[in-house]
Amino acid sequence: MILQDAFTVEPWNLHETHLDLDLLAKTESVFALANGQVGWRANLDEGEPHALPGSYLNGVYETRPLPYAESAYGLPETGQEIINITNGKLTRLFVDDEPFDVRSGELRSHERLLDFGSGVLTRRAEWVSPAGRPVRVSSVRLVSFTQRAVAAICYEVEPVDSQARIAVQSELLTNEQLPSADADPRVAAALEDPLSGEYYDATGTAAVLVHRTKRSGLHVGAAMEHLIDCPAPVRAESRSFGDGGLVTAAAVLAPGQKLEPRRCRGGRGPRGAAGGAVRAVPRAAGQRPGGEPAIPAKGLTGPGYSGHAFWDAETFVLPMLTFTTPAAAASALRWRHGTLPLALDRAAQLGLADAAFPWRTINGQECSGYWPAGTAAFHVNADIAVAAVRYADATGDEEFARGPGGDLVVHTARLWVFLGHYDDQGNFHIDGVTGPDEYSAIADDNIYTNLMAQTNLLAAADAAKRYPDRACELGVSDEESATWRDAAQAMTIPYDETLGVHAQAAGFTRRQIWDFARTSAGQYPLMLHFPYFDLYRKQVIKQADLMLAMHMHSSAFTAEQKARNFAYYERLTVRDSSLSACTQAVIAAETGHLDLAYDYLGEAALIDLRDLQHNTRDGLHIASLAGTWIALVNGFGGLRLKDGTVSAAPRLTDGLTRLAFTLIIGGRRLRVEVTHAQARYILTGGDPLEILHHGQPVTLSAGKPHVRPIPAAPSRPRPSQPPGREPVHRPHTGNAGH
Amino acid sequence: MILQDAFTVEPWNLHETHLDLDLLAKTESVFALANGQVGWRANLDEGEPHALPGSYLNGVYETRPLPYAESAYGLPETGQEIINITNGKLTRLFVDDEPFDVRSGELRSHERLLDFGSGVLTRRAEWVSPAGRPVRVSSVRLVSFTQRAVAAICYEVEPVDSQARIAVQSELLTNEQLPSADADPRVAAALEDPLSGEYYDATGTAAVLVHRTKRSGLHVGAAMEHLIDCPAPVRAESRSFGDGGLVTAAAVLAPGQKLEPRRCRGGRGPRGAAGGAVRAVPRAAGQRPGGEPAIPAKGLTGPGYSGHAFWDAETFVLPMLTFTTPAAAASALRWRHGTLPLALDRAAQLGLADAAFPWRTINGQECSGYWPAGTAAFHVNADIAVAAVRYADATGDEEFARGPGGDLVVHTARLWVFLGHYDDQGNFHIDGVTGPDEYSAIADDNIYTNLMAQTNLLAAADAAKRYPDRACELGVSDEESATWRDAAQAMTIPYDETLGVHAQAAGFTRRQIWDFARTSAGQYPLMLHFPYFDLYRKQVIKQADLMLAMHMHSSAFTAEQKARNFAYYERLTVRDSSLSACTQAVIAAETGHLDLAYDYLGEAALIDLRDLQHNTRDGLHIASLAGTWIALVNGFGGLRLKDGTVSAAPRLTDGLTRLAFTLIIGGRRLRVEVTHAQARYILTGGDPLEILHHGQPVTLSAGKPHVRPIPAAPSRPRPSQPPGREPVHRPHTGNAGH
Repeated sequence: MILQDAFTVEPWNLHETHLDLDLLAKTESVFALANGQVGWRANLDEGEPHALPGSYLNGVYETRPLPYAESAYGLPETGQEIINITNGKLTRLFVDDEPFDVRSGELRSHERLLDFGSGVLTRRAEWVSPAGRPVRVSSVRLVSFTQRAVAAICYEVEPVDSQARIAVQSELLTNEQLPSADADPRVAAALEDPLSGEYYDATGTAAVLVHRTKRSGLHVGAAMEHLIDCPAPVRAESRSFGDGGLVTAAAVLAPGQKLEPRRCRGGRGPRGAAGGAVRAVPRAAGQRPGGEPAIPAKGLTGPGYSGHAFWDAETFVLPMLTFTTPAAAASALRWRHGTLPLALDRAAQLGLADAAFPWRTINGQECSGYWPAGTAAFHVNADIAVAAVRYADATGDEEFARGPGGDLVVHTARLWVFLGHYDDQGNFHIDGVTGPDEYSAIADDNIYTNLMAQTNLLAAADAAKRYPDRACELGVSDEESATWRDAAQAMTIPYDETLGVHAQAAGFTRRQIWDFARTSAGQYPLMLHFPYFDLYRKQVIKQADLMLAMHMHSSAFTAEQKARNFAYYERLTVRDSSLSACTQAVIAAETGHLDLAYDYLGEAALIDLRDLQHNTRDGLHIASLAGTWIALVNGFGGLRLKDGTVSAAPRLTDGLTRLAFTLIIGGRRLRVEVTHAQARYILTGGDPLEILHHGQPVTLSAGKPHVRPIPAAPSRPRPSQPPGREPVHRPHTGNAGH
Repeated sequence: MILQDAFTVEPWNLHETHLDLDLLAKTESVFALANGQVGWRANLDEGEPHALPGSYLNGVYETRPLPYAESAYGLPETGQEIINITNGKLTRLFVDDEPFDVRSGELRSHERLLDFGSGVLTRRAEWVSPAGRPVRVSSVRLVSFTQRAVAAICYEVEPVDSQARIAVQSELLTNEQLPSADADPRVAAALEDPLSGEYYDATGTAAVLVHRTKRSGLHVGAAMEHLIDCPAPVRAESRSFGDGGLVTAAAVLAPGQKLEPRRCRGGRGPRGAAGGAVRAVPRAAGQRPGGEPAIPAKGLTGPGYSGHAFWDAETFVLPMLTFTTPAAAASALRWRHGTLPLALDRAAQLGLADAAFPWRTINGQECSGYWPAGTAAFHVNADIAVAAVRYADATGDEEFARGPGGDLVVHTARLWVFLGHYDDQGNFHIDGVTGPDEYSAIADDNIYTNLMAQTNLLAAADAAKRYPDRACELGVSDEESATWRDAAQAMTIPYDETLGVHAQAAGFTRRQIWDFARTSAGQYPLMLHFPYFDLYRKQVIKQADLMLAMHMHSSAFTAEQKARNFAYYERLTVRDSSLSACTQAVIAAETGHLDLAYDYLGEAALIDLRDLQHNTRDGLHIASLAGTWIALVNGFGGLRLKDGTVSAAPRLTDGLTRLAFTLIIGGRRLRVEVTHAQARYILTGGDPLEILHHGQPVTLSAGKPHVRPIPAAPSRPRPSQPPGREPVHRPHTGNAGH
């Protein structure tokens, strides 16, 4: 838990005004910098103290054996673990030969500021060495968003009162010793010193190291170059060895004089912290099918979940990227597309048709060691297809739609026909699979899975119709297309007539309800205190499942069904997952529970700033953070996209005075500004766009704002949650927008 | 596969007339000797060649870590593996200093004979040494059925043509090197040299070794003593060291003279192979709660299934023991009772009420590393309770019934009330558990489980009523007893009205039927070629499940239901388990498919003699072998026991001319002799006994045979099995009886 006063509240900044060593692991995560390729945890420049050093390069992993107490056919035998690549952010400072260490001497001040506008992390400290020499230190870090392999640091040090001998040592360090997180000695051994040296060099103020992962055979290079600014004479030298490179700059400085060894490649102005501190190129034939980066569950901010990417990316992160940074969404989808050959292999291994995408992976191979909550969660196939369709619909990117997008929807659709079957009444069932909720598994006719499969099947049939030449190349016949439409048409959606609610999966609502009254606060998260068999057989929900189905397939449910389902499932949902609050916010907002939606919005947004899941040390919850956008835009904005048509149903809670966001749709920008009374829609350029506002068509033309009143929300009693699992109630202040 | 000509067909003997080294692993199993405490595989006396040396002591195991790719609450972390204790059956022979080895010189003859009447294994060989010296060698082995810690060997050697210098070396050998069976190096390492020496000694012709298992801390002692018979002067000596003991006897013998070093303790006649060759006492405070031996799945004939005991013992082995060797049944049940404290601990760990017996174990702790097919198979609780009730009903053992039996039924019954729940209509459901069929898992309302639980609950209520003082001690109130009867009364039994058959579990008959047509012969057993998720979600059955329910709860189904269910489930059952054929034989016989029952009888009986499962090398399939009795007595004899009343419905197939068996019931012997036309019942002593013959009451008095005619079997078309999975059709010859 991080208390509220750890950070000051500022727009677009994360600002820490004093250093709390007890929070170091968490602040290393929340101040981390990453650009999709390179990730740097916010370890202190001087390396020590640290909680968890972290320098990551997307897609660079080491393999390890996946052990099983009892083996079975089809279980993956090899796991993948994100590894620390060469640490290129170490900058050690010596003041009169005493090392700068916040734990010694006197730390007069310390602040860190992450500017979300510029993406730059600034640190400022004033420190008095044990011998009494005060210095001012500042560093500015960035990882480049245009040159993804480049990161840079501008490091300044200046004596305060009196002359001092200053030395700054800039390091590259490979196979840095890490605190062991894994109790299994074999895993720890497999990941100890994962990199073996292949080349090193140092000249002038530059150094370079090239390594290779021992088992996965990936090459990683790291190089650093420096520009040194100093009014006094500077002695600089460099050297390198197997696992390290050093560039040292030393000078005697008077107060006011600064030593600035900037790690850089090419300077672009006096303080423009430009240049290439770390350049790393993963190369390994056949190991990374796609050249695009995945979006791991933790981004590149920590080693949590072994650095794996899950369905989270397509379902929680890509919606935001699709409407705000479409190129990044395309890139993530192209990564998936690049792993298609491995998904084909996996399906063949499982005896299934066509493609089975992995539940968790770095390079595209299934790494899930617990199949009931991994491989059986076949919805990942449809999550990918739906994300591809969403991207194509929102952007109109024809090249993608007929290329990788078409590949993805066709190959994924084929799985469903094979997984499902018709009963005697002609209903199509998908049995024995696991939906989003990880407190259920191996269920029949999970509604989320079935609706996603339905969309997947129809999208494949549509794609085949729209791109007949591509369909022909993929071997799609009219007959096959027809089987897709038939299965979609006949898809089973379990409904409990007695209770008047949908069943998350067949029979779910008949099961015993978890004994919440006898579950103590200390017994959450439940999976750490109860066996899976007990969770699976009862009505208790870890994360939004049917609610996610209602969000993503809004038209498959009536407003009344949504309200009843929400009320029923709220009292079963314990949110032991970070993939829940944002979806609950969306459905709460849609069903008129705006205050509750606001509370869930807060939980999604603050998950890491408040360390609500007690594991922010392992990295940020990227899906929940992207879910903040979902809670705002799909929740309070009521945004839905169906068959290429945008609908909005904005409605604010009392806690929000205003909500504004911009969506990129078909290359045009749609600005939406919402107050309690009205919504204002502005299209900037491009063809006119027809949207729906609370169900009513509005035709927008470029530059002409349209203002529409907001109807009152239906009044319904606030649903209850399991005792003790209510979201924190948030006071009514502030606004949200960008 | 073992071909039919490997053994000659003789009553009560297993007889091998020549040595086939390719079959060594299998014959080591089928000629193994075991008495419930000591087990000796039929390794050749001289140690080499061997396939798998095996010397076991029931309950002596080593622990090893159970690894998981993804850990979860409640998964057992420590496994148990049966280990080879000190090998006490090595007897090396030297003829003019050349070692006897069947692979060198000339093996003129070699035969082995296991006499099931006396329990003695005899081996006879005539061998010519490479130097041309012919000798006759014979050995006779036994493991004592009265002194369970004792085994003995009488070894004779005699020159045939000419004088020879004969030396016989009798050995104790600890930590014998074994062929590594486990691919996991950690497991192999944990089990290498598991015993550390604590004491050794040798005097005269005796030697003793004491060891301790390194991690599980069990003490094992082995001692040998010898009587040496020889007409010529013998030089004998002994010595011992850390992991070995040696007694050597040497003499120069003329033809006709024999050297007989008998391992023994005390002689009881010239050739009575008496005496204590190996005495082993497991001692380890707290490690073995019960002093009684378990019945592992492989008996003590090999290391298969890690030497674990499963529900097999109670369900397939105890029925035979209960009616033929009641003391052995009581002993096995007392072993379970001794593990009750560990079952209480396990239930507490799982958050359940009272006792949860383990799926697989040596000492009573759960060792199942795959919970969907292990811990979730809670029916083991009821299997134990039902076995206890069966024993008490059949024997009238009041002391057991009010003591350990009562404990077992009460503690197991409490689990069901906790596992199950009532729906709104007042039906009691047990959700998310796994029944006997291992190609289904985590199912709702598995009929076998529900009926077993029902019996368990009623038995507990009856026990509480019958022994109110014991009930009071166990904290059973009238209210609690009432909840047991209520749950039993309201138990759900899924029935598919459309198909007119019972559903093995809720929804089972709605699932997709396995595509048998597209499954090749090489793809069986299915679990080695298909992932569990695919098996679990389809109609395909590994082993009898509903059929076992119909056998054990005969009165819960009408004759017509049984016939329809049998026909429906036969075409789904692939028998990839050895725990199936005997049950299918029982229901086939009951539903009039007598020829089919005969085929299944053959499969159950010959499973190891023909190596039908291709793993006889790892030990015998004890449950299937005991299942031979079940197929005969419960199948062709139609024996059922319900509420203490024996019913029989004998009916023979054309392949059998006569069936005769004796049951011990309440201390009396009931002899049943069946021909095609009639059944003859004879009670030897004791009170009169009322039984049912094909549903008609017959009152038997001691010594007065009753003869009853056998009604004709109903005529029904022979059910079909999955293509290629039909049992081998057996020709119509022979009879069965004892």
